[in-house]
Amino acid sequence: MYRTHTCGELRIGNKGENVTLAGWVQTIRKFGAITFIDLRDRYGITQLLFGEELNKQLEENPPGREFVLQATGVVDERSNKNPNIPTGDIEINITEYKILNKSAVPPFTIEDKTDGGDDIRMKYRYLDLRRNTVKKNIELRYAVNRAARNYLHQQGFMDIETPFLIKSTPEGARDFVVPSRMNPGQFYALPQSPQTFKQLLMVSGYDRYYQVVKCFRDEDLRADRQPEFTQIDCEMAFVEQNDILEMFEGMVKHIFKEVKGIDYTDKVERMTWEDAMWNFGNDKPDIRFGMQLLNLKKPSSVFTDKDDNASLVNGADFKVFDEAETVLAIAVPGCSEYSRKQTDELTEWVKRPQIGMKGLVFIKVNADGTYKSSVDKFYNEERLKAIAEAAGAKPGDLVLILAGAEERTRKAISELRLEMAERLGMRNPDEFKMLWVLDFPLFEYAEEENRWVARHHPFTSPRPADIETMVNNSPVIENAAEYLKHPYANIKANAYDMVLNGNEVGGGSIRIHQKELQEKMFAALGMDREEQQHKFGFLLGAFEYGAPPHGGIAYGFDRLCAIIGGSEVIRDFIAFPKNNAGRDVMLDAPSSIDEKQLEELQIKLSLKNDL
Amino acid sequence: MYRTHTCGELRIGNKGENVTLAGWVQTIRKFGAITFIDLRDRYGITQLLFGEELNKQLEENPPGREFVLQATGVVDERSNKNPNIPTGDIEINITEYKILNKSAVPPFTIEDKTDGGDDIRMKYRYLDLRRNTVKKNIELRYAVNRAARNYLHQQGFMDIETPFLIKSTPEGARDFVVPSRMNPGQFYALPQSPQTFKQLLMVSGYDRYYQVVKCFRDEDLRADRQPEFTQIDCEMAFVEQNDILEMFEGMVKHIFKEVKGIDYTDKVERMTWEDAMWNFGNDKPDIRFGMQLLNLKKPSSVFTDKDDNASLVNGADFKVFDEAETVLAIAVPGCSEYSRKQTDELTEWVKRPQIGMKGLVFIKVNADGTYKSSVDKFYNEERLKAIAEAAGAKPGDLVLILAGAEERTRKAISELRLEMAERLGMRNPDEFKMLWVLDFPLFEYAEEENRWVARHHPFTSPRPADIETMVNNSPVIENAAEYLKHPYANIKANAYDMVLNGNEVGGGSIRIHQKELQEKMFAALGMDREEQQHKFGFLLGAFEYGAPPHGGIAYGFDRLCAIIGGSEVIRDFIAFPKNNAGRDVMLDAPSSIDEKQLEELQIKLSLKNDL
Repeated sequence: MYRTHTCGELRIGNKGENVTLAGWVQTIRKFGAITFIDLRDRYGITQLLFGEELNKQLEENPPGREFVLQATGVVDERSNKNPNIPTGDIEINITEYKILNKSAVPPFTIEDKTDGGDDIRMKYRYLDLRRNTVKKNIELRYAVNRAARNYLHQQGFMDIETPFLIKSTPEGARDFVVPSRMNPGQFYALPQSPQTFKQLLMVSGYDRYYQVVKCFRDEDLRADRQPEFTQIDCEMAFVEQNDILEMFEGMVKHIFKEVKGIDYTDKVERMTWEDAMWNFGNDKPDIRFGMQLLNLKKPSSVFTDKDDNASLVNGADFKVFDEAETVLAIAVPGCSEYSRKQTDELTEWVKRPQIGMKGLVFIKVNADGTYKSSVDKFYNEERLKAIAEAAGAKPGDLVLILAGAEERTRKAISELRLEMAERLGMRNPDEFKMLWVLDFPLFEYAEEENRWVARHHPFTSPRPADIETMVNNSPVIENAAEYLKHPYANIKANAYDMVLNGNEVGGGSIRIHQKELQEKMFAALGMDREEQQHKFGFLLGAFEYGAPPHGGIAYGFDRLCAIIGGSEVIRDFIAFPKNNAGRDVMLDAPSSIDEKQLEELQIKLSLKNDL
Repeated sequence: MYRTHTCGELRIGNKGENVTLAGWVQTIRKFGAITFIDLRDRYGITQLLFGEELNKQLEENPPGREFVLQATGVVDERSNKNPNIPTGDIEINITEYKILNKSAVPPFTIEDKTDGGDDIRMKYRYLDLRRNTVKKNIELRYAVNRAARNYLHQQGFMDIETPFLIKSTPEGARDFVVPSRMNPGQFYALPQSPQTFKQLLMVSGYDRYYQVVKCFRDEDLRADRQPEFTQIDCEMAFVEQNDILEMFEGMVKHIFKEVKGIDYTDKVERMTWEDAMWNFGNDKPDIRFGMQLLNLKKPSSVFTDKDDNASLVNGADFKVFDEAETVLAIAVPGCSEYSRKQTDELTEWVKRPQIGMKGLVFIKVNADGTYKSSVDKFYNEERLKAIAEAAGAKPGDLVLILAGAEERTRKAISELRLEMAERLGMRNPDEFKMLWVLDFPLFEYAEEENRWVARHHPFTSPRPADIETMVNNSPVIENAAEYLKHPYANIKANAYDMVLNGNEVGGGSIRIHQKELQEKMFAALGMDREEQQHKFGFLLGAFEYGAPPHGGIAYGFDRLCAIIGGSEVIRDFIAFPKNNAGRDVMLDAPSSIDEKQLEELQIKLSLKNDL
């Protein structure tokens, strides 16, 4: 060992001890004949004092910023204590030191607030990882990992590794593929998730499985997506939906307790997908705050079980509302005194292409009980009051109303709700609120192909009550224009998402475990028998030999860590992330490979640019 | 939940309780009006008793082998107790049951001793995994995983995930590569190990890192090699060799304790590579038993520090020994009474092509103190006695002697030693003996290219005493015939292997952390500056910014589990293994992929068979 102690552990109780530390030079300060060096390692910072007798050596062999130093001396009490760090009461009176390695001047400062931009920090990720803020994220990630494992172990789950070199069965996202040299012309695929393997493990009787596992998706990367990402992947046999929800809200509560010291005692709310869309415009609502939607108007084809409040806006000859499919409102607390400039700015905000609305209607519910709106011409004070009250506005609030096509308007009001909450400080990253969203539609309609696609994946079971509907009806859509009237459009999945602070952190379902139903599902997705056998023959085979009822969930580990860490930037919680083009700029990967490698794999490049 | 209890937990204390179990039908036995079913799950087997009143239902809806059953009834004491299983005192008096899923007749019996061959069990791996023997292996694997993690956590190690989509830097084994759709013409590689990443983490200050991580090597598969395998991968900063050895023998001891209940209190032996080769003919000796080699004769070019016993065999005009480069002997305990048939069979054994010797000389050390050998013509009793005594033979032992070319003979006697130990039951799979083998040669000579290659990998440091030799000498080999006299031939690595019962289970080294030495190493391996920068520029870059002294180790997790499980067949300890052709026969992977996928990746097949 190059050290007797770390740079984070010495206290006043160690006074008089002879110790050796090793670490990196954080700062060097010279006061006359005396030199102070702050030495840093993973555990903290300790102040080293170099007296006059070391001056000659310091001059001949001067340490610089980020040099690796080994230094021996006696622990002493500081005259000038630093209450901000745990070692702040002591310093080491150095008797000898050795430079273990030199350092060039780093391209950015190794400080919490660094002068390095994103690109340079990614290129020199090994230096960025030295910064305390980044280190804290990596440590938090490990703490979450460990807390999850411990909880799952206590609950009888087993970590069982599933293979990485599997078979390509593209369904939804694209697979990354790996040419096989031993089997020329054939390819492995990297798993998008261990989905079918964990189901096989249930068939094998390993009734509680988990894995913290890398998954791969070759998608066009959006901001903050990674081609490789980590899942906490779990599956249970002999369970129903409620068993899984309770088990896994327990896991997240355990993580809160272990990692953040938070006792999450609230009951975890459960909400149907339909209610989430109706009340929040979003299938992953942030319920740390209210501001629920007032559905003033909706088209008849959707939310057929819900009643809108059309009477509140109809008959006023206000063309914008009259011609809109959908009219939605929120009551923003305490903003009734917004200036013209502020409401104009909000209007511009909703008109941005990302939001795509044509305008914004507002009603100010003044503190004195009067009303002022941008549509006073059409609605008298009584009607404004009725709308505002229906939206739940109190004196001092500002009602914001959007109108337009159903899908776009609902999305826009959801974005506006989040934006206003953000501006009003209602999205506190230190407050955590879990939510289960249930009863998603099992299918989505794919217009181009006039067929159904699986919203979650093809292994998700319908809700028990909907199984009959699926079995007894043909998936064929005779009338594309009226696909919403097809029985399949109303089948709900026995699926669930865990939403944390407005982010989907986990999702899963009770699976199909009956061979016939699975075949029906594959057929509904347009797979003929041959394709079913080619892609999933092993799973259909397994279902012939006593498959138990089972279900599971997968947590997006990178995102879960980010949210718990109070951030939404998952890249900051990954030791060696890729950029938005899927590149590792530190390694410079991907890169070209040797002609010899291609030859051995019996493949050739066929670049379109070359044509 | 489909059950109130598992099939492994009910005891006589539960008598009278109403319970529901769910599991698989192991056996059905009918006695008159009564039917017994043994129900199996992951946790055990429980006997269900179906009385007369259920006969009608059993006839209409008969369960079969491997059906999934849910059954409710009252726990009762058995009249006929089964002391062999924990639930053997009770049975469940069933009042109602439900078949949750049917099963076809499995293609082999789900029993410890199955009638299924290797191929069929691999195809139906999900059924094979149901067998108790396989389940025990998977459970043991999880127990080893967890014990290793817990130990490393207690020692301050952090699990930090490293990327899977990295850069191809083939050096030694071949990389699996992954074409990048987003960067046409470029490829990622799958990691052969996280070697450079863990070194970067040391540079970043995360001074104790670990990971249980998949690695990939595209090798021509030998028996019991897998293209993807798992490592317990570890690295530490500010350490010297001894720190690592102590830390990791501690880990394996902890695993023995947690997983097998074994207190491993013996001091872990340390042996130089040279001593291992000299005394055992092998760099991973099984030291559960003695039978060390007697070096009767060796060529002068190797083991230059060791003295052979040539005087014991020279001057007898026995051409076989006189003309041989090397003569080696072992004393096999208690085999002096081997018959002619037995010694002939042994002679045939060493003449097999895998061993490749021309013959076998033996000396019987009879219980009465007389000697009898196959070379009585050349050696009198006195000389036979001298040889036998030097080999450590006692009365009743059999001395076996091989002669031939150095490398082949040493390998052959090592194989013979293991074979004899196996036959004599000296390789007890329940006895565990760890050993560190140290001071491997840093370089190996590559004849074809007349240059050095890294025996371990290019990041391994020379022993401290040999660094000067490496720095001060050119790697160029002027005289190929005399490469053994080149200073580099004698440089030893600061490396170590952990050997467990004659198997290498772990290996590592103190790494190079100085940029100049790393460049010298790359140059010694024939890499020019440009290639160094292209492949390892990021690492050389990192070494400019304060790299600490560091070292690490990686355990072959699959093998470690197998050895601890008393087996050497790693495939039995992997949930979904591949066969010797690298195929997953259950999935039928690898397989062809869609033309569309190839097009998107901008690659083409270029099969040699097509030419």
